[in-house]
Amino acid sequence: MIKDPRREKELQKLVKRLGLLDTKKVNWSLLNLALTHPSISQTENYQQLEFVGDAVLRLASAEVLYNTYKTESVGEFAAIRSILVSDRTLVQFADYYEIEEYLIMKESTAKHKIGRNSRLADAFEAILGALYLSTNSMELIKPWFAPILKKKSTEIRQDPTRHNYKDALQAWTQGNYKELPIYQTQTISNSQDDHNSFISEVWFQKKKLGTGIGKTKKEAEQGAAKEAFLLINQDSI
Amino acid sequence: MIKDPRREKELQKLVKRLGLLDTKKVNWSLLNLALTHPSISQTENYQQLEFVGDAVLRLASAEVLYNTYKTESVGEFAAIRSILVSDRTLVQFADYYEIEEYLIMKESTAKHKIGRNSRLADAFEAILGALYLSTNSMELIKPWFAPILKKKSTEIRQDPTRHNYKDALQAWTQGNYKELPIYQTQTISNSQDDHNSFISEVWFQKKKLGTGIGKTKKEAEQGAAKEAFLLINQDSI
Repeated sequence: MIKDPRREKELQKLVKRLGLLDTKKVNWSLLNLALTHPSISQTENYQQLEFVGDAVLRLASAEVLYNTYKTESVGEFAAIRSILVSDRTLVQFADYYEIEEYLIMKESTAKHKIGRNSRLADAFEAILGALYLSTNSMELIKPWFAPILKKKSTEIRQDPTRHNYKDALQAWTQGNYKELPIYQTQTISNSQDDHNSFISEVWFQKKKLGTGIGKTKKEAEQGAAKEAFLLINQDSI
Repeated sequence: MIKDPRREKELQKLVKRLGLLDTKKVNWSLLNLALTHPSISQTENYQQLEFVGDAVLRLASAEVLYNTYKTESVGEFAAIRSILVSDRTLVQFADYYEIEEYLIMKESTAKHKIGRNSRLADAFEAILGALYLSTNSMELIKPWFAPILKKKSTEIRQDPTRHNYKDALQAWTQGNYKELPIYQTQTISNSQDDHNSFISEVWFQKKKLGTGIGKTKKEAEQGAAKEAFLLINQDSI
């Protein structure tokens, strides 16, 4: 399917690296397209496959979360998934599989370091799209990718320093608007027991999205982020 | 799996109505859960299945669009999909299959007419989730649902009165924020040929998201909506 036999060999190496044992069903032209940046061609590039792959990623993540943490709330599902599907996580996956080696793009684009993360995240999603469309099923994806999603979601949940909702909110605002939420946190003096409490408000685009109260600044901000995150996700989950 | 044999019979009727010939693989408890509103139980309800079903819907839509309109831009894919996955469309599907008949909820909830659309859209997504999780694949979904998505996307594309990007933008702002975008449209007098042109700006949450120019007010607003829609989708597609 691909004219250049060297390219097909390269892509076979990548597919083996992903851990796919049976490579007969891979559509090599689609996989090649998944690794073709828009700087090469305005029409023959990874964008459509990325569109499909984004949906593949979301479903694979939802399935792993449902099967692994059946007793968790949907809010927790949404919080973990928003980290799983964030560019930051996708770049980690892409780097693990050394996707950059296989991505064809103009030299001037490759020099543009600031776009590296989104290129790699896009290409990684496009690979998922190409593998899905190779069989019109999850057959070539779940065997290697579900364990990775499961491991990553365990990592996210177990991380003692994880600021779940703050991270999730930030991933959402950056993903959609390339802007950070703003926290305004104040001390509330408590005459009853000498301990101070904190109240935090989180603002985004001039709108207050949530308020939290806690014994530490961190706890108050987490509370505010949680309220905000649940608010913005109440219709989209 | 379900204790009440009458309920299982009812659900079998629904599954046949969907057009599924082979019902042996359906997980009836999951399907029952998909049709249990949160007013019945805070934990045993359709919310988790809806979370999975939302992702099923997005992937099924992406696949249909990819297979049907391969030469279209990703922006057009995103515009059509945002209508396909909107509550308005989901309620049409739900009504076609008379989902309301099968949805178990508190009487006080059922009386709350204003929540009807979101209940039905949620339950419809949850049914997709339950069918997906019955086999951990699209096997019980694609045979009946892909043709429906294809028919609906053809309808959306062929509708001569369709205001594609305006609808898509509105579906997005309402879905995420329950607010409408605001269009500010003015006449530009054109001394050269006596014809007036129009310039339209679309605003959302105090931010200008797009500008369009056209020979009619409608055309100018469509242009503004298109710019806005592509802007908000550039990272999320």
